[in-house]
Formats: sequence, structure tokens, C-alpha cells
Amino acid sequence: MNVIRKPTTGDVTTGPLPASNKIFVEGTLPGVQVPMREIHVHESAMEAPTVVYDTSGPYTDPNAYIDIEAGLPKLRQEWIEARGDTEPYDGRDVKPEDNGNVDDDHLVPEFPVRNAPRRAIDGKAVTQIAYARQGIITPEMEFIAIRENMLRERLPEEVLKKARDGAESFGAEIPDFITPEFVRSEVARGRAVIPNNINHPETEPMIIGRNFLVKINANIGNSAVTSSVAEEVDKMVWSTRWGADTVMDLSTGRNIHNIREWIIRNSPVPIGTVPIYQALEKVDRAEDLTWEIYRDTLIEQAEQGVDYFTIHAGIRLKHIHLTADRVTGIVSRGGSIIAQWCLAHHKESFLYDHFEDICDIMRAYDVSFSLGDGFRPGSSADANDAAQFAELETLGELTKVAWEKDCQVIIEGPGHVPMHKIKVNMEKQLEVCGEAPFYTLGPLVTDIAPGYDHITSGIGAAMIGWYGTAMLCYVTPKEHLGLPDRNDVKEGVITYKIAAHAADVAKGHPGAAARDDALSRARFEFRWEDQFNLGLDPDRARDFHDQTLPKDAHKTAHFCSMCGPKFCAMEITNLVRDYAKEGMDEMSEKFKEEGAELYKEDYLDKKAAAGDDD
Amino acid sequence: MNVIRKPTTGDVTTGPLPASNKIFVEGTLPGVQVPMREIHVHESAMEAPTVVYDTSGPYTDPNAYIDIEAGLPKLRQEWIEARGDTEPYDGRDVKPEDNGNVDDDHLVPEFPVRNAPRRAIDGKAVTQIAYARQGIITPEMEFIAIRENMLRERLPEEVLKKARDGAESFGAEIPDFITPEFVRSEVARGRAVIPNNINHPETEPMIIGRNFLVKINANIGNSAVTSSVAEEVDKMVWSTRWGADTVMDLSTGRNIHNIREWIIRNSPVPIGTVPIYQALEKVDRAEDLTWEIYRDTLIEQAEQGVDYFTIHAGIRLKHIHLTADRVTGIVSRGGSIIAQWCLAHHKESFLYDHFEDICDIMRAYDVSFSLGDGFRPGSSADANDAAQFAELETLGELTKVAWEKDCQVIIEGPGHVPMHKIKVNMEKQLEVCGEAPFYTLGPLVTDIAPGYDHITSGIGAAMIGWYGTAMLCYVTPKEHLGLPDRNDVKEGVITYKIAAHAADVAKGHPGAAARDDALSRARFEFRWEDQFNLGLDPDRARDFHDQTLPKDAHKTAHFCSMCGPKFCAMEITNLVRDYAKEGMDEMSEKFKEEGAELYKEDYLDKKAAAGDDD
Repeated sequence: MNVIRKPTTGDVTTGPLPASNKIFVEGTLPGVQVPMREIHVHESAMEAPTVVYDTSGPYTDPNAYIDIEAGLPKLRQEWIEARGDTEPYDGRDVKPEDNGNVDDDHLVPEFPVRNAPRRAIDGKAVTQIAYARQGIITPEMEFIAIRENMLRERLPEEVLKKARDGAESFGAEIPDFITPEFVRSEVARGRAVIPNNINHPETEPMIIGRNFLVKINANIGNSAVTSSVAEEVDKMVWSTRWGADTVMDLSTGRNIHNIREWIIRNSPVPIGTVPIYQALEKVDRAEDLTWEIYRDTLIEQAEQGVDYFTIHAGIRLKHIHLTADRVTGIVSRGGSIIAQWCLAHHKESFLYDHFEDICDIMRAYDVSFSLGDGFRPGSSADANDAAQFAELETLGELTKVAWEKDCQVIIEGPGHVPMHKIKVNMEKQLEVCGEAPFYTLGPLVTDIAPGYDHITSGIGAAMIGWYGTAMLCYVTPKEHLGLPDRNDVKEGVITYKIAAHAADVAKGHPGAAARDDALSRARFEFRWEDQFNLGLDPDRARDFHDQTLPKDAHKTAHFCSMCGPKFCAMEITNLVRDYAKEGMDEMSEKFKEEGAELYKEDYLDKKAAAGDDD
Repeated sequence: MNVIRKPTTGDVTTGPLPASNKIFVEGTLPGVQVPMREIHVHESAMEAPTVVYDTSGPYTDPNAYIDIEAGLPKLRQEWIEARGDTEPYDGRDVKPEDNGNVDDDHLVPEFPVRNAPRRAIDGKAVTQIAYARQGIITPEMEFIAIRENMLRERLPEEVLKKARDGAESFGAEIPDFITPEFVRSEVARGRAVIPNNINHPETEPMIIGRNFLVKINANIGNSAVTSSVAEEVDKMVWSTRWGADTVMDLSTGRNIHNIREWIIRNSPVPIGTVPIYQALEKVDRAEDLTWEIYRDTLIEQAEQGVDYFTIHAGIRLKHIHLTADRVTGIVSRGGSIIAQWCLAHHKESFLYDHFEDICDIMRAYDVSFSLGDGFRPGSSADANDAAQFAELETLGELTKVAWEKDCQVIIEGPGHVPMHKIKVNMEKQLEVCGEAPFYTLGPLVTDIAPGYDHITSGIGAAMIGWYGTAMLCYVTPKEHLGLPDRNDVKEGVITYKIAAHAADVAKGHPGAAARDDALSRARFEFRWEDQFNLGLDPDRARDFHDQTLPKDAHKTAHFCSMCGPKFCAMEITNLVRDYAKEGMDEMSEKFKEEGAELYKEDYLDKKAAAGDDD
């Protein structure tokens, strides 16, 4: 692992993961080159490398030149320009309030390169759903089809067959192979979303939908209390290194605008935000918010290239009182801001009233809606209650409005939900939101473990991912208690990779279990290094092994620390296996000779035969 | 937290958990005094303390005098003696091979106090199931009934009612209140087990069954590679401090006998072992094992007071070949030892052949069977295969044999099982084992995360606990990689407390959610200290909060580090709540006055009314 040092921006983590290299799979459309990671195993295994989905962008490519002051290459720029439906324009001037009126001494430097933003010509919809509905397969769609397959055409057919064995997809329809046309059709019917702002051409396209691999999101962001630009950019790089498919920047303090620019220009994954957070920084109190301030903030962020916006337009004045008797009221920050505004003004929010105006902005940049669940339950006691479901129904209604406007939509979900209420929640979402992708925070299956909420929520995330949620928003161990640091971000990402992968396997996603099998073979054959490298976190696996058995020789030892050198379950099994094969043939012969007497009757049969019933 | 220092035994952790005190609830039978933990909250909450199940024994009681050289008080001694069906006898002499023939310099000192062991008079069954079948309610049963209720008769009725709301118990029948008679009837029909060797009178009785709270087990144990007696005793104390209901001592190195004695004499929870591990230490190779050596080891451990034995009697010669084509063969250490023995001798194991002889030993001391799953899958690929289910059917058969002998039985289960195969596994176990309690290791829902297998398995554990597993054997982050240290033990225990509790809540266990609700109220009301103290790990919660907001003042602050001091979702919600209640009344008036115009129509209705369909 190398670290690039930059005086103004601090460190970002680069370099490949152990035993891994990046490959690029070419598509048929110009410029479609899809990165994947190959993990190589010891030659004694005589196995092809395992191909895994790679979210880390150029940072893990030793051939890439990383300069975070220049930003990443603009992979999609030509595709966007070639469509001829957008134009560059001057864009909005950066205002002091965009950075929280911070004084010059504390102002984070602007990103060094300034590009003119693009927007749709003449109010056209330049969204992937608009193209999909016109029957157009975009380069983004072909890229995604190749990416989702992870070269699974190379796997033996029995692997693909076994994936379906006993699997339950709860209505998901995952094909054996993903074609570009399948991607198009899923996007066209709103069942999948490609979050790709035309002003974020640095992204490697990815898709969110329940007929694709389950995705995960990592939240980062400074707050008024702590953090710096260097930390925030590296948190993004760091979280994608371990597998974050998208990153939300939830900053609430000063310098929001400038920090976000640094993040977007260096991000290979889609970036989401909650624009009301920044709008609120521009006023004193929630009730001082206006449509004009909010609209200006949407434009500001759309021009920067934010790929999806959380918008809490589902909060209705008439539903607010439904939260009054809850154990934990309204816990969504955005939701409570809007609720406060509604009550202060005695009217519907400007988000709801101006929803179609918002759609017009979203379609001009292809920003995807992430319709926020402002009434998500903040405790098990409040799960699936009238407030939550009333809002969900409103979100379903707004989804149809957005779809009419050719906008892409995902739906946010909770939160805190005990296990027995998770499936009901998923079914309700599919039903009322027309199968628009569900994007849930966990859910946490119990409230009693602050400090371990990556785990309480990882349980719920795995289950709801299995039931049909398309993207899982991670929760770190610091949830409810403090701001996540680098270690917390990694812990959260790995936990959610586990949940997403477990869901893929349970849904019968073809090829998903190939990595499990490769790792298990390595484990069984005492290929310790391979076991580490095929895992989600090779560094930790190696470190844990070192703690008990530090010597290099132990990495090839045919025993592990659990059983010690004298006996080992797996080593014995290897003997048993040879012995069994040989022995069974021999015994099979004996069996025939001795009239099956070698095989004793079952215990109860024997007892019954002997009349023994003590 | 205080630490008792003893020159020969090292440190054990004592002292109450924060804001907690121990109470004792009296039963009607002599000597029945059931410990529980009360967690107190800030007086501003005006709430009674939350009562939680307490596994920690006298170590958290500031009034208890802890002397690990004397061992714990013998709580059950009088109950055992009063039954008049057992007698003390000389017992077996400790042999050099019991401690692995370790030389004097490395011999762990014997436990200072030696008591004569007891056994049943004249081959009587002195088991809880024998008493239960005779209609006897033992003091152990009354103790358990009180313990399981956790004083839930004090909770408001709506809490008990809400617990059932939408809950799914998959056939479990959990009554509103547990009576001693209910405990008796569940034990009598073999649906629950009270692991209580008559030679371990120090235990606080507990029950394992799916109509009771889901329990967790922590594994400890030295191995040939590392560890010492001081560490092992403290691991037991430490794991029960955080919630382990039973502890298995899986030691495989030297000094096994002496270390086990120290552990048992100081353990308030049942201790389980896998006797074949120690038997194997007494010979050179698996094939040298004999029934005589094994039998002698069973007696050795039964006299010491081991409460349950894992016995891999379900391995049949005719089934061994079913593992030959597996990805990971046989991964159970005990299973592979037996399989090797069977193949070397070309016959059924002495465990299977002498199963009734084993029953006779178990019933003479009330050691419970934990019928081992020697063919448990070691990878997702091998889950629910022919080998696993063939063995499970044999275990079902042996369960009936053991029940005929008035022995108590639990059934061990896997292992590695992807989510979609967990429920099938549970249903199969209930069906073929006559509802004998299931005791599973995890299961791990994916193989790809070495270093995080407490999480991969915590997901499966929560689910299988919900479906009906009675006890969950923990997995630590070191699984597959190394031996768990103190931190790993705690991480594993807390993860499994989460899984077990989430399962209780989802099953609709009355009163289980009371702790969730108390913690959520504390969270909502910014009672930070209460939030920490009501959680499973107050120390970590406080530490995490300190990392971002270290000052004492922050512990009473009405904001948290996520939103910063300017705005806070929960703080705003408090305002919204007051406002909503007031405002809704006012609006309600307006509503009437203005003919409901204040409430806008739904978006689509509005659009439809306006003929707007763009």
C-alpha cells in the first residue's frame, strides 16, 4: 500500500490489494472498458484467479497516475458529449454562504481545476431512464452489463446451476447473464437506477436494482464539530477501496461546497447528498428556509456533479401528528427540518409543493431521486407504524410523478426494524412504489447495543437485502455515539459487504458463491495466504493469524492454532478422504461378500429386534 | 471495575456494571434466590430500573467475597443432597495422563480444595428430566421460572401485548409468564434441558429450550500452542460478565484436568466439554482410542462436574463416504477423529456402539448430552448436504434412546449455511429430533470474510435463533485464524447477545423489548449516560462518545456529534412534538372552519383534477 503525499490535501491510499491485479474487459461501444479485480491463488491450486467486483477506481491501479489536485480522468465525458443533448454554460457563482461564510483563514482551498458545468438543452430529459425508454442502450448500460457479470461466463456451468439450488429470490428475476438490453429494460421500467450526473463524468457506471448485485453505500462528511478536507477525500477513497458502491457526503459544517468539489472530482463512484443539510447552513432556522434557497442549492450541487439527492418530499402536513406518540418521534435530520418548517408555516413543504419543479432540475442533469424517509423509525417500537407507512405511500405517489418526468428514483427505508417486521416492510415498499429500488439504512434489529450497531444493522441489512432491497446504507460502530473515523468506515463497509454478499448468495445470484467456494477450497487445503487474499479484508486476516502464529512457516503449515500441531480436523479429513475412497471400495466388496452385515442396523431397529425397551 | 489479584491464579474481573445492582428474587422452595440485574436511569426519567437477565454470578456482586482458590459457594448442594438419591464416593484418582503427562515444572497447581464426587445410588437417574417425568418440580425448575420472567409482571400490560404484535414464533409456544410447572413440563417432554451436573453445585440454574429466552455459549480453552490457567479462568469470568449463559472448555493441550477443575469450581454457569479431545491427548493417534479410555475420561469429567458433553455418536460408518466429495470434507475436530477411527478399524465407533453405556454414565451424574454434529458443513457449498442430514437423522434416533434412559439431550448444528438454507435446516432438526433443543455454531452465512466471522455468523445466529434454535454457540473474530484473546471473547459474546436478543424480540417473547424501549427513550431524551448503561456494553458506548465529544458536559448535551450543536434531529423533534400536539388542535379547528382546504389533495389527485398528465 503506497501513500501519495500532497501538501494541501493530505494522504490518499493507493496500491493494489494483496495478490490482486486490475483487468479491463472491453465492450462493443467506444470507450467501454470495465475494470475488475482478479485475485490470484498459489500455483499449487491450479485454479484460475477469482474475479471480483471492483469499486476502487484507479486508486488500486499501479499503472494509474494519481493526482488528486487534477482529479480522476473523465471516463464518461465523450459519451455525454456524443449524445448532443447537453451544453456547457457558465454556471452559478460560488457564494460565501455555500461554504458557510467561513473566513479566509479557515477556507478550504478551491479545487484547482474549474470546468464549465453542463445541462440539458431546452429542458430535455438527459437521464438514463429517458434513453432507456427510447430504446437506446447507452455506453453506461453496456459497461454495467459487463461489470455485473464479473466474467461469470468463465465459471463451470455446475457453479451457475448450484447457485439456484434451493435459493429464494422473493420475486427478483435475476438472469443467468446480464445483457445490455436487460440493463436497459430494467432502467426503463424504473426497477433499476444508474446514478450518473452528467457533471460527474469521472464515475465508473454502476446500477442499483434488485435484479443486480446488492450494493452498499458509505456515509462520510464533516460536521461543525470536527473533520477536514484531507480526511474526507481519503474517507471516500478508503471506503471505495473496501467496497463502497456509492458514497454519501453528509457534511453539515463549513466549507461544504469546496470539500464536496474535491470529493466529486476524485470519486470513481456516484456521490449522494442531502441538499437540505446545506440549505439549512445558509439560514438561521429551519423555518427560514425557502424554495428559492433550496432550489439554488439543488442547482449548486447538480452543477458540481452530485449523482443522487435525498429529498424528503414525502412528509405531508397531515401525517406529522402520527409521529407524536412515538417512542422516538422523528429521528431523520432532514425529516425533522421539514416537519418543523411545515408546522411553523402551517402548510405543505416546498419539497412537496415544488416536486415537479425539482423533477425539472433532476432531469436536466440526470440527478437521481433518493426519496427520503423522514419518518423512518428511530427505534424498534416505532417500526412499521402509521407514520412510516403513510410517508411510504406518499413516496410511491411521488415516484410516479418523477417517472412521468423521466427521472430516476430510489426509495429510502429504515432504520430500526425488528426481524419479524422486515419482510412486511419490504413487501409494502415493492407494492406501493412500483418496484422502484429500495435503499435502506440497516435496519437495526434491536436497540440495545450502542457501539455495535454495525452488527445490529448488518443482521437486518442481510435479511432485507435478501428480501429485495437493492442498496444497503452502511452503519458504523459509532452510530448514535460519534463520528466514524477511518477504522469505523472500514468496519462499516466490510460488515455491509458481508450483508450484501450473503443476500446475493441467498437470492441465488449466479456466480456470487464462486468466491466463497474458492476461499473454502483454500481453507481446506491450508493455503493460508490464499485464504487471506480471497477474503474481504486480507490485512486483518493476516494480522489475526500472525497474532497466534507469527512465523512465515506457519503460513504454509498444515495445522492451525485451533487444534495445534498434534491433531487437526482438516488435516485428518484429508486422510479420511483418501482412506474413505479407498476404503469404501474395499468395504463395498466386503459388503457384497458378507451380505451387508458390515453395516449395522440402526440403533432403534437393533433395539426393537432385541426386544430391548429399557 | 476491581481486579482481585492472586499470585497463583492471576486476575479475575469483578465489580458491578455501571449503574447496576444485583437483586435476588425469592422463590417458595428453600434456598431459591434468583439473581437479576437492575439498571438504574437518571431520576429525571421517573422510570423504574430495567431488570435484565444476569449470567455473571457473584463476580458482579460487591457484597460477595471472591476467592478463586476457594471457589464459588455451593448454591445447589443442599437441593442435591436433600433428594437422597446420590452419595459421595472416593472417585477416580487423577492420573498423569489426565494432565498430558506434563512434568512437575509445568504442572498447573491442583485446585486447593478437594471434595468427594457424588453419583446416583444404584443406577438411578438423577436427572432433571427424570424428576420432571415423575411430576417433581425441583428447586432448579422454580429458580429458572423466576429467572426467565425477569420480573416482567412489573411491566405495563401493553408492553406484553405489543410484544406479540406481528411476531412470528415458528411454532414456539412461549407463555406470557413462565411457571415452575411450565419448566417441568418442557423438561419432561425433552423440549428443554437444564444442564446441571450434581458435581457442579456452584451453578445458578438455567434452561435451554425454544420456549425460553435464547441462550448463548462462549468457547474458551487452552491449546498446545498457547494459554495459561489464569487466562482461562478469567476468560470464563469475563465471558459470563458480558452475557455467556454457558461456557465450553475446549482445551486440547496439557494441564487440561487441573485447569478444568479451576474453571468449574469458579463457574456460575454450566460448563460443557468435548471429552474426545481429552481422550485423544491420552493416546498417540486417533485409531489408538478405545472405549475404555473414553469411558474413563467421561467419568473423570463427570466427577469434576462438567454439565454437558459433546458426543459425536451420530457418525455412522456407512455415512462417512458422503463427505468425500465435499468442498471442505469433515471440519469438526471431534467428527474427524471419530471418522478416522471408524475407517482405521472398519467398524462403527465406540460412541455409537456404547451409546447406552454412555447414557448410564450421563444419568448417574446428570450430565446432559450435546449430540455433536461431526459432519457439520465447513463451507456454504456443503450446507444441508446428504452427509449432514444423514447424521442429523442418526442424532434424532439417539435422542430417543437417551430419552428412554431419562437423559437430557440437546442437538448440535452447523456451521456454514447460507441464508436460504437456514430455515430448512431448523425445520429438519425439529422434525427428526422430536423438538430436542437445537444448539448451533452460528451459522456463518458466507465464507468470504475471515476476521469478521463473528458478523457472518451473527447474521445466521439471529435468524436461526428466531426460527427456533435454543442456544447459539458464539464465534469470535479470530475464527479460522487464531485463538481468541480477551477482547475477541467479549466481541463474540456481545455479538451473540445481539443475535439472541433480536431472536427473542422477533419471536414475540413478552418483555424482551422492554430494554429496547428503555434505551430508546433514553436516546430520545438525550440521557446519554442512561443510553450507555442500558446497552450491552456501557464501556464501549461511553468510550466511543468520548472519542468525539470528550467533555462531561457533552454527556448531558441536547445534541450529538452527528448533527452538531446548531441543529439536531432529535432536538428538533422534541419541538415538533410539542408543536404538533398544540398545532394539530389548532389546525383541527381551522380544518373545520375552512372545509378541509388546509389539507391538500394528494399529488396525483391534484394532477388528475387539473387534467395535467405531462
